[in-house]
Amino acid sequence: MDVKPRLPRGRQFFANPGPTNIPDSILHAVAHVTVDFNDPAFLAVYDRCVAGLKRVLRTEQSVFMYTGSGHAAWEASMVNLFSPGDTLLVIESGYFSENWARMAQDLGLVVRSVAADWRRGAEIGAVEAALAADAAHEIKAVCAVHNETATGMVLPLPAIRAAMDAAGHPALLLADTISSLGSLDFRMDEWGVDVAVGGSQKGLMLPTGMSFTGVSARAMAAHATSRLPKSYFNWTNMLARRHRSFVGTVPTSLFYGLEESLRLIEEEGLEQVFARHARLAEAVRRCVRHWSGNDGPQLFCLSPDRYSDSVTAILLPEGHDAERVRRIALEAFNVSLGGGLGRLGGKVFRIGHLGDLNEPMILGTLASVEMALRLAGVPHNPGGVAAAMDWLAEAAGQG
Amino acid sequence: MDVKPRLPRGRQFFANPGPTNIPDSILHAVAHVTVDFNDPAFLAVYDRCVAGLKRVLRTEQSVFMYTGSGHAAWEASMVNLFSPGDTLLVIESGYFSENWARMAQDLGLVVRSVAADWRRGAEIGAVEAALAADAAHEIKAVCAVHNETATGMVLPLPAIRAAMDAAGHPALLLADTISSLGSLDFRMDEWGVDVAVGGSQKGLMLPTGMSFTGVSARAMAAHATSRLPKSYFNWTNMLARRHRSFVGTVPTSLFYGLEESLRLIEEEGLEQVFARHARLAEAVRRCVRHWSGNDGPQLFCLSPDRYSDSVTAILLPEGHDAERVRRIALEAFNVSLGGGLGRLGGKVFRIGHLGDLNEPMILGTLASVEMALRLAGVPHNPGGVAAAMDWLAEAAGQG
Amino acid sequence: MDVKPRLPRGRQFFANPGPTNIPDSILHAVAHVTVDFNDPAFLAVYDRCVAGLKRVLRTEQSVFMYTGSGHAAWEASMVNLFSPGDTLLVIESGYFSENWARMAQDLGLVVRSVAADWRRGAEIGAVEAALAADAAHEIKAVCAVHNETATGMVLPLPAIRAAMDAAGHPALLLADTISSLGSLDFRMDEWGVDVAVGGSQKGLMLPTGMSFTGVSARAMAAHATSRLPKSYFNWTNMLARRHRSFVGTVPTSLFYGLEESLRLIEEEGLEQVFARHARLAEAVRRCVRHWSGNDGPQLFCLSPDRYSDSVTAILLPEGHDAERVRRIALEAFNVSLGGGLGRLGGKVFRIGHLGDLNEPMILGTLASVEMALRLAGVPHNPGGVAAAMDWLAEAAGQG
Amino acid sequence: MDVKPRLPRGRQFFANPGPTNIPDSILHAVAHVTVDFNDPAFLAVYDRCVAGLKRVLRTEQSVFMYTGSGHAAWEASMVNLFSPGDTLLVIESGYFSENWARMAQDLGLVVRSVAADWRRGAEIGAVEAALAADAAHEIKAVCAVHNETATGMVLPLPAIRAAMDAAGHPALLLADTISSLGSLDFRMDEWGVDVAVGGSQKGLMLPTGMSFTGVSARAMAAHATSRLPKSYFNWTNMLARRHRSFVGTVPTSLFYGLEESLRLIEEEGLEQVFARHARLAEAVRRCVRHWSGNDGPQLFCLSPDRYSDSVTAILLPEGHDAERVRRIALEAFNVSLGGGLGRLGGKVFRIGHLGDLNEPMILGTLASVEMALRLAGVPHNPGGVAAAMDWLAEAAGQG
Repeated sequence: MDVKPRLPRGRQFFANPGPTNIPDSILHAVAHVTVDFNDPAFLAVYDRCVAGLKRVLRTEQSVFMYTGSGHAAWEASMVNLFSPGDTLLVIESGYFSENWARMAQDLGLVVRSVAADWRRGAEIGAVEAALAADAAHEIKAVCAVHNETATGMVLPLPAIRAAMDAAGHPALLLADTISSLGSLDFRMDEWGVDVAVGGSQKGLMLPTGMSFTGVSARAMAAHATSRLPKSYFNWTNMLARRHRSFVGTVPTSLFYGLEESLRLIEEEGLEQVFARHARLAEAVRRCVRHWSGNDGPQLFCLSPDRYSDSVTAILLPEGHDAERVRRIALEAFNVSLGGGLGRLGGKVFRIGHLGDLNEPMILGTLASVEMALRLAGVPHNPGGVAAAMDWLAEAAGQG
Repeated sequence: MDVKPRLPRGRQFFANPGPTNIPDSILHAVAHVTVDFNDPAFLAVYDRCVAGLKRVLRTEQSVFMYTGSGHAAWEASMVNLFSPGDTLLVIESGYFSENWARMAQDLGLVVRSVAADWRRGAEIGAVEAALAADAAHEIKAVCAVHNETATGMVLPLPAIRAAMDAAGHPALLLADTISSLGSLDFRMDEWGVDVAVGGSQKGLMLPTGMSFTGVSARAMAAHATSRLPKSYFNWTNMLARRHRSFVGTVPTSLFYGLEESLRLIEEEGLEQVFARHARLAEAVRRCVRHWSGNDGPQLFCLSPDRYSDSVTAILLPEGHDAERVRRIALEAFNVSLGGGLGRLGGKVFRIGHLGDLNEPMILGTLASVEMALRLAGVPHNPGGVAAAMDWLAEAAGQG
Repeated sequence: MDVKPRLPRGRQFFANPGPTNIPDSILHAVAHVTVDFNDPAFLAVYDRCVAGLKRVLRTEQSVFMYTGSGHAAWEASMVNLFSPGDTLLVIESGYFSENWARMAQDLGLVVRSVAADWRRGAEIGAVEAALAADAAHEIKAVCAVHNETATGMVLPLPAIRAAMDAAGHPALLLADTISSLGSLDFRMDEWGVDVAVGGSQKGLMLPTGMSFTGVSARAMAAHATSRLPKSYFNWTNMLARRHRSFVGTVPTSLFYGLEESLRLIEEEGLEQVFARHARLAEAVRRCVRHWSGNDGPQLFCLSPDRYSDSVTAILLPEGHDAERVRRIALEAFNVSLGGGLGRLGGKVFRIGHLGDLNEPMILGTLASVEMALRLAGVPHNPGGVAAAMDWLAEAAGQG
Repeated sequence: MDVKPRLPRGRQFFANPGPTNIPDSILHAVAHVTVDFNDPAFLAVYDRCVAGLKRVLRTEQSVFMYTGSGHAAWEASMVNLFSPGDTLLVIESGYFSENWARMAQDLGLVVRSVAADWRRGAEIGAVEAALAADAAHEIKAVCAVHNETATGMVLPLPAIRAAMDAAGHPALLLADTISSLGSLDFRMDEWGVDVAVGGSQKGLMLPTGMSFTGVSARAMAAHATSRLPKSYFNWTNMLARRHRSFVGTVPTSLFYGLEESLRLIEEEGLEQVFARHARLAEAVRRCVRHWSGNDGPQLFCLSPDRYSDSVTAILLPEGHDAERVRRIALEAFNVSLGGGLGRLGGKVFRIGHLGDLNEPMILGTLASVEMALRLAGVPHNPGGVAAAMDWLAEAAGQG
């Protein structure tokens, strides 16, 4: 069926998996007049934000922040820890583990991979085996994407730490928490994560522009001997500054936003934030599973214990174009969906369900997707929205 | 089933029939620094707004504006036209026609009513009969609520004007367009309306605070002899000012908002704005009609040719409390519905579908209402949302 | 000298005496999404605002609020208290006392005036004499503009109350506090004021759109027997509503702003707010007095004990046009000054120094005015700004 | 004299040399809801911004943008052009040339310096001599800070290009335009600049968070052979993307702001923007020169032909603490001044006069500084503000 684009009206339903919806109160906080980043009044805000960020990361160790996107924090984690030719073990998860590996190679590091089926996720046993095989301890770090945004799958970080310990391997554990932090349970210190990479624009519900790394004492020791060239991201440079983060100008606006973000998160409570994400994610999955009947779209992730509660990738039946579904959703209904990344381009679309989200937002999105499937001629079992509603009504009934 | 309130998260779905959702670009325009209302730069904005407001009213006659709500414009229409003891013919439509009549009585006017069943609407024949019976032409004006916000029903103004003409009666025609202007077709000059009462906070998508009246040349003539005391609302006072509206300070902020509102409306085109309202309203009605089977909730309005495209009132089955449904929608799903007004309190709830609205917004709302009906134990035929989706997908398919 | 207009750049210095500068935090609070004015979450904000407004008014009696400008609150004070033909004693102060009197006459009331020289202010003895002469107690109310915005002069309300008491006259005392409340000391209950008329757009630093009246128990008793027609402003109608204010829609946006305004005022403390106004006002006066030498501009107000701390009117020497000075300040320096009102048009310009103001704002304004005087060829003793700086530096030195 | 801090009220006068004042319309544009950076509607905004940025840079060659601060763009310019051990010739200008050199060394480059007196600026002859002496053409690039923010001095880039040409040296010319672009005349192509480093937060009047480099064809050729490790800043990576800039998420919010920034700049006209900066800067200098009499504060820059029109550094007389002056200005008058950087700490303070600025803003600042000098007991010739006013009035009189 041909669908004529309409002038967008009403609020856009932003169902990309990131950046995410920004609550109005954060938008207004970010729209702050310029201040001196050394002004005592700003420093009080700043210090509160750093303390709050540590609570969200669940760490009492160090945090370094960057004016940059999530990729900046990735790069910071590497140039601060490693020397040219160092070896990393990257656990394959999807597009973002590939990108992280490519960045490491760009920077002159050697990458070994734990290969994985993107629909099932890496086997922990394979991680342990790879480490056990590295008797010389050439591997300096294990890189794990906590929540693979491209596929909607979680890696169980505690199991990976357990595998590292079981192998008696001294490598550092680096976790990309960009699309999990503030949405899914994450505990840097308790789980033995050495570097946690995060950004402003996902669970923290801020605009893109600030990213950060939680850094363990062990990682700080590794930093002392790293020889990759670095300046903008250099932790040692940062420690010499009042802010103990940032080289150059501090993006003050985002800290006013972060202060409000932390207020919202802690008002709700981290546990309740996670529970809300789990509830809405389950609604999406029930909807998709309903559609699946009769060769319809399927959940891309085939490992139920690794479903992501912040993003769901949906695989279209062979011969159908996910980009067409996305275009119809956008042009006819003002709903913005995520596309397939890398080798998944055109094959999947993705629904982000993280950040400032509630039932009618997710149901309005699912209803629009169901209509877009119909208009795109993608076979599916109608009634997915009703399945999602059954679940959400039941969940509401249980308080 | 007991529903535990949740901390509101995500954007509230505001499905009250007014005030309405304010687009971000209007919110930001309204957040304007203070300016001198006589500053030439502001006067240019002001003059453009007045011209645009006339285009929306479809009038080339006068417009007067007030710092005030819609009730202010009602009062302005009366104190500027009438003298103590004058008689008005109010066509009963619901809560707002009652209120208008009561205001007239408060101000010392005499009210005759054309009685009507609130679910079916007044008969045009009865209007004509009332006028024909007034051989002495005591009736100075016919008061018609174009769109009765409390019941979701439209009065056909051209038919009323035709009835007045048929009766050869010289009364003025006053129309309350508060919840129709900018949402439903309205043509002041073509339809022979003498005074059109409107407000900022509905189809114009602005905050509450500014209201206005379109005024015909005939109404200006009546104004010249009116003796009700007036000052704040006095048109003659206004004509002596540069702004030819307002007594006292001009609410400059709202004009920056109005400029953006008019830009949005005219970018889309009034006809397309009306078509969008009609499309979304029909989705609501198909949903409610689906629920209705087996003693479920019903459309309050029983006259299909008078369905309102800006608000729908839904009557609960006997013994069920509409306020409970509203409370659950608000507390569990962050959806704000309109309640029953006056004698309809507890019996109906209302869904506003006017202003800056699109498909996922209305579907997210309907889905939440369907869940709230379930949680409140109100009998209904599940699947109303699917019926709405059928319609909206079909409409999108037709471009 | 000819001055070519420039495109305005930088922030406009808004030195009109009202509306006033709105702090960013209030602008952002006002840019609130629409809410249901009966929503419990809003009602909590609303109730806090009403309580805070009473603290600013220093009353424990009633407050009624209106969607409207200050003139709406004036009209409300009259239609709620009086009956056709009732007599008011208006103390002449300037343009606004004239306007108030004219409004009373528009509404069918009889006005007696205590005449006054606008540059010196009314004599309290004349007020007492007028009351003493009214043995029949025909005068129902004394109307006093606490701070005459057109001339920059204050009326000592406690002295007026004392005069009323001395005369043993039962009239009500109505005070227009529009440009004094939140800027100058005002104590409704302690000073025996029966109705205090105020608006959002001055000391409360909000956009225009909400006004209010504090109402004493004695005034409520008078209301019970008043016979002027009223509906939109009717206190009795209001008392029947949950909000005990407003007829029709509540302007919710402004209440989010008012909540922030009250927070700012009470964070600083009312006494400190008044002290800041007094300090900045004295800087303006010292500047003008310095200019005055050799037939320069003069303070319009000739009674030092009645200087207004929220606005200063400056009288130009004969033969010089105040509007030209204003135009140059606006076009060359982006400084907006107040003009002369009514019979003072062209003769005076006014500097508002109320609301959210500090030293560099007032000094930037005064410097621009001094340059504008020069460019307009108005004789003056240069160095007024230095005189203001002497004072402000001394004041800062004393903490 | 002891100065008691006051609670800040009124708008802060932000007279730091950067970040700069952000106009309200830009703040509101930046407060944009999240969008997909691949959404066609966003891409249209993005492409317009890139074209506009090129007009401001006066280049038709390449532009690469980074989520990062100005230091990120510095780093990008180095890692994209050079290989380990490459030599740069850094022209000493002050704190920022030192920092740039230090960053180069951090990244493994070799730095030669053209030493200079910070108060007089480098001699062009010394630049030419250094290049002429480099017969082997070991110097890969000349690094020049166009406007040294720490001292308020400009380097004449055309003269440097002429010196390079005169020496027949093939080195690239890298210019830091962070505090000049959009404030001072700069012409990348005409002046033969190979890399121009700029940031969002100065003349473009945006929040900190986006920086960029204009890149010549010659620089692109050098890029092709550079071997410093790079990923986040890698131009080749960027060219493979639709946006031809950014690795990772695009900071969409800032582009809505940039669109408005470009609109403001081009509405005024670049030449008029520069003229405004020159006019206001001259006012500051005349004020400071007036203060200087009798061992008062002096202009730090001793070379009048190199005065910066975007920032002025002011040297306090021996034995006086610039930080105390800054603290008093902040705490007593809510004026934020820049401090002395590096070896100038405590010796100078700086007034930024760039971006969205006008006469009353600069005069309010100067008046506050003069009061702060007095309160801090710093000797000075009072009347600097009057000297600034004389100049500004004269300039206004000339249209």
